[in-house]
Amino acid sequence: MTQYSAPIADLKFLFDDVFNFYEHYQKYPEYQEATQDLVEMIMEECNKFCSSELSPLYQSGDKEGCHFNDGEVTTPKGFKESYQTYVEAGWQGLAHPVEYGGQGLPPSIGLVRTEMMATANWAWAMYPGLSLGAMNTLIEHASEAQKQCYLPKLTSGEWAGTMCLTEAQCGSDLGQIRTKAVPNNDGSYDITGSKIFISAGEHDLTDNIIHIVLAKLPDAPKGTRGISVFIVPKVLVNDDSSLGQKNAVTCGSIEDKMGIKASSTAVLNFDNAKGFLIGEANHGLEYMFTFMNTARIGTAMQGVSSSELAFQISLPYAKERISMRSLSGIKKPELEADPIIVHPDVRKMLMMQKVISEGGRAMIYYAGKIVDNLNLAKNEKEKAKYDDQLGFLTPILKAFLTELGLESANLGMQVFGGHGYIKEWGLEQIVRDARISTLYEGTTGIQALDLLGRKILMQRGHSLQNFAREILGYCKDHSMISDNPHGRRMNKFIWPLSKAVLNWQQYSLRLALKARKNRDIVGTASVDYLMFSGYITMAYMWTMMAQKANEKIAEKPDNIEFYRAKVRAAEFYFDRVFPRIKSLSTTMMSDPKSIMRLDDDSFSFL
Amino acid sequence: MTQYSAPIADLKFLFDDVFNFYEHYQKYPEYQEATQDLVEMIMEECNKFCSSELSPLYQSGDKEGCHFNDGEVTTPKGFKESYQTYVEAGWQGLAHPVEYGGQGLPPSIGLVRTEMMATANWAWAMYPGLSLGAMNTLIEHASEAQKQCYLPKLTSGEWAGTMCLTEAQCGSDLGQIRTKAVPNNDGSYDITGSKIFISAGEHDLTDNIIHIVLAKLPDAPKGTRGISVFIVPKVLVNDDSSLGQKNAVTCGSIEDKMGIKASSTAVLNFDNAKGFLIGEANHGLEYMFTFMNTARIGTAMQGVSSSELAFQISLPYAKERISMRSLSGIKKPELEADPIIVHPDVRKMLMMQKVISEGGRAMIYYAGKIVDNLNLAKNEKEKAKYDDQLGFLTPILKAFLTELGLESANLGMQVFGGHGYIKEWGLEQIVRDARISTLYEGTTGIQALDLLGRKILMQRGHSLQNFAREILGYCKDHSMISDNPHGRRMNKFIWPLSKAVLNWQQYSLRLALKARKNRDIVGTASVDYLMFSGYITMAYMWTMMAQKANEKIAEKPDNIEFYRAKVRAAEFYFDRVFPRIKSLSTTMMSDPKSIMRLDDDSFSFL
Repeated sequence: MTQYSAPIADLKFLFDDVFNFYEHYQKYPEYQEATQDLVEMIMEECNKFCSSELSPLYQSGDKEGCHFNDGEVTTPKGFKESYQTYVEAGWQGLAHPVEYGGQGLPPSIGLVRTEMMATANWAWAMYPGLSLGAMNTLIEHASEAQKQCYLPKLTSGEWAGTMCLTEAQCGSDLGQIRTKAVPNNDGSYDITGSKIFISAGEHDLTDNIIHIVLAKLPDAPKGTRGISVFIVPKVLVNDDSSLGQKNAVTCGSIEDKMGIKASSTAVLNFDNAKGFLIGEANHGLEYMFTFMNTARIGTAMQGVSSSELAFQISLPYAKERISMRSLSGIKKPELEADPIIVHPDVRKMLMMQKVISEGGRAMIYYAGKIVDNLNLAKNEKEKAKYDDQLGFLTPILKAFLTELGLESANLGMQVFGGHGYIKEWGLEQIVRDARISTLYEGTTGIQALDLLGRKILMQRGHSLQNFAREILGYCKDHSMISDNPHGRRMNKFIWPLSKAVLNWQQYSLRLALKARKNRDIVGTASVDYLMFSGYITMAYMWTMMAQKANEKIAEKPDNIEFYRAKVRAAEFYFDRVFPRIKSLSTTMMSDPKSIMRLDDDSFSFL
Repeated sequence: MTQYSAPIADLKFLFDDVFNFYEHYQKYPEYQEATQDLVEMIMEECNKFCSSELSPLYQSGDKEGCHFNDGEVTTPKGFKESYQTYVEAGWQGLAHPVEYGGQGLPPSIGLVRTEMMATANWAWAMYPGLSLGAMNTLIEHASEAQKQCYLPKLTSGEWAGTMCLTEAQCGSDLGQIRTKAVPNNDGSYDITGSKIFISAGEHDLTDNIIHIVLAKLPDAPKGTRGISVFIVPKVLVNDDSSLGQKNAVTCGSIEDKMGIKASSTAVLNFDNAKGFLIGEANHGLEYMFTFMNTARIGTAMQGVSSSELAFQISLPYAKERISMRSLSGIKKPELEADPIIVHPDVRKMLMMQKVISEGGRAMIYYAGKIVDNLNLAKNEKEKAKYDDQLGFLTPILKAFLTELGLESANLGMQVFGGHGYIKEWGLEQIVRDARISTLYEGTTGIQALDLLGRKILMQRGHSLQNFAREILGYCKDHSMISDNPHGRRMNKFIWPLSKAVLNWQQYSLRLALKARKNRDIVGTASVDYLMFSGYITMAYMWTMMAQKANEKIAEKPDNIEFYRAKVRAAEFYFDRVFPRIKSLSTTMMSDPKSIMRLDDDSFSFL
């Protein structure tokens, strides 16, 4: 019932028309191989794998869930086989360095694979996804010997990896972790402690799992400045890279969750397990930040994928299910009632899902281009530039797209009426699976503090100014004044967008001034500010897409209806979604006191 | 983990201070018994039953679910015993006629019991809840002989009842039903057809189940004008009221659903089952409308109850869980971190849950007073008046409160971070259970069409004008000009509320004018219009509550903090929630074309 098919036409539009990815790749000698032919072949092949191997396991994986038995976890039927197919086809190393066995393609192409796997079967995709997190941490911060030891088998997918951060007493506040790392004479460490919520922490897909573990040295400074990062393999690796002794890591249990049931969420107990320090001691949090940007974009993808999958199921249903007659007169006299897609509110829900899926996808690949640039930055200055751009967009993408993804999944369910609540259709699973996305990898509240507190206030609005300048520049270049032949058609997008960006700058400044007097405003405004920022960023995407679509329409191509639909969708976005910034701009600027004044004891009088 | 305790202080505030229920009861000879002492005793007793019997079965009922075996349904462990306790205590007949064994108390007191059961254990509460629906249908439309036959045992709770409307091919569009009723010579009918989504359609709580079934006579007019209503008992009833032969009704299966797993949702097959016509043939839809108002207020209650239960779990967690330090400086130096309730965004989520729960509760009891009046209306004119009031508020209550209830449940989960996703805490269950509330008893879209299409346009805004006049009158009477001693403090509520009500009237008129030219606007505007209406209705409640709280504060009572918290909550509502009407007023007035213009084939290009 949840058969997935990749939105290849939409991906091609983004790669070829909107973001000019092929020109972008040709600027880098390292990316010369990434030609349009190759990328489109990858899209087709990956779609085949995801639609035929992963999609059929989506509902069965949820129904069966993972099995825990005496420390061992068995994944649902079919997971191991499809993972083997994935490894054999070399998908895991698609965008990883050639020297460790990867194919060395740009990260943006890796995102295509991630999107397709994510939409076809999010729970399945988490296993290779967490490995990517571990691999990126090793690539960025591990020693060459460590890389040689672990990366080839992680790149091939023969081994998997995890990120072990959370403990029972702390999630967001990693300064509170208690896992200890005691140095041995041989340079290794004895790791002792318990980690919870470890996605892919234990499973039967691979012979080894390389855990990346946050722990504290005995003499570590208090709080976040005392965190170090260790490699703790499930099975120790001999010098010849063969598997050695089992390490002292055991899986204590797996969680019984609302959704993503086919993804194991493990409690891992480290009992003097042998670990190997990555980089320098006490620099763990800093290392985690580089990892987090990519992990958070991966989670942002979950927002897009929830929306896309829900839309792929609700749209055909809305065309088939008949109920009542159209308000403006009978549309299908030959049927007992009209298909529900004729009803304005149903159309509205479908349009909403469409603009969230397509607008969100554009946001992801827009960021993907920055990841490509960052990956091959020529010097520290360039690196800092792209790092700033990405760091600014990351919390917006993660929180905004997961919140909207959840909204879209719920709308998909709503299109079904009561039938959406029944397991059979798969919609309720999408909602349950999507629900985790605003919680893990930093809740929406944490992302919002990162955006307003760190990326705006601590940076004095520097990244925002750059982004605002880019958008305003785009608006100017594509307005009627600048002889844009489509300028008249673009007015309805360019003016509201420009105005909103100017407000964004002004409100940000006002919040910064207010925050000097009252720090609480950073927290009372932050989530509304983030959502406000998200709607503007998405409006920029829809403006760019509408411009490109108008350009293509002028060429009268065979698939002209595709481009017309893009313009219509942009119109819908600006008419029906973008006005949400009005309420947000009021609430985010409100005085903190209506939130802060109530005594803790006065919230309830039970 | 989900221990419920009834919000008695809040109920007393509404009954005693805000809505003057005791004066209201004394106006009716039939309600003389409903004194403050009795009502408060009922609140205490019902709380005991709900917190000690129903609340402990909330999570276990979800985990176990209902069992289906060869046509029979077994409810989860403990359900049957607690239902027996409920019947023995006489709770079912609390607000039903004395002549059939009830206690004859006003419907508004029945709502107190409904609220407590609903919040403690919604799935459990659905069994007696559906019976109430069947009982109300019988009371309104059945013959005296039918009432004598069925009502006493339904009122005692010895038997249960259902409402059998939906069929596989139709839910909202009841004109499409295919269940047939063929008359027999003895005045009974043979009912044949299949009904789906029948809540409490089969279970082990009672010896008999009285199904109220929609079906069509052989010569019935097409569509909704050809619907008739029948009583179809699971077990036929002999003339002496004893149980006779089993009727030809079988439960084919029960649904596997996202939530409310402890509530059985049955497929019922009628195979020449014996049925008895209620009222006149072909008047079924009309009869259903009287039933629907009460059923929809019951579902609106689910919104309040989801919000309240989530709040009762997330609040103590926010006080206990420690993470990071307050933005405005350390609050608990003795702890390793501050409790998360100090963080502005967490407080905001808690405040949101608080104002939804308390504001929603006020909306329910405000409507409850109208139900009381309708119940004892002296003549047709009075009846029409109260019916109009209730009919206008019902879709707002049902759709707005269930949408906000779901938002609040999700916020409760969000307060927990990743822990909220784990089954143990119960939050994810509340979200799953709440998710059905915007779907059944008419989706949000259906309610919105009822509001804008029937209650505004067809009635030419008559009910809205009356309601607007009441609110504006209240605002005038409580403004500074009218010598309200609290007028200065009330300004911040009264002005935005008055302004919004004036806009409400104006926008409604403009929509009516636009709808003459383009019917589609009724559907493109309807959901936003309904939500807009809901926020204004809730703002009226918060204004009345703030006024009463200010009056009480002036008296300096012992529980002064309770009243101060009410004023703070009202401030929060007006600052942070009410501004949502800004965006809604823009989107609802938008031209329908951005929704209607896209070709059905252009929604997707897969």
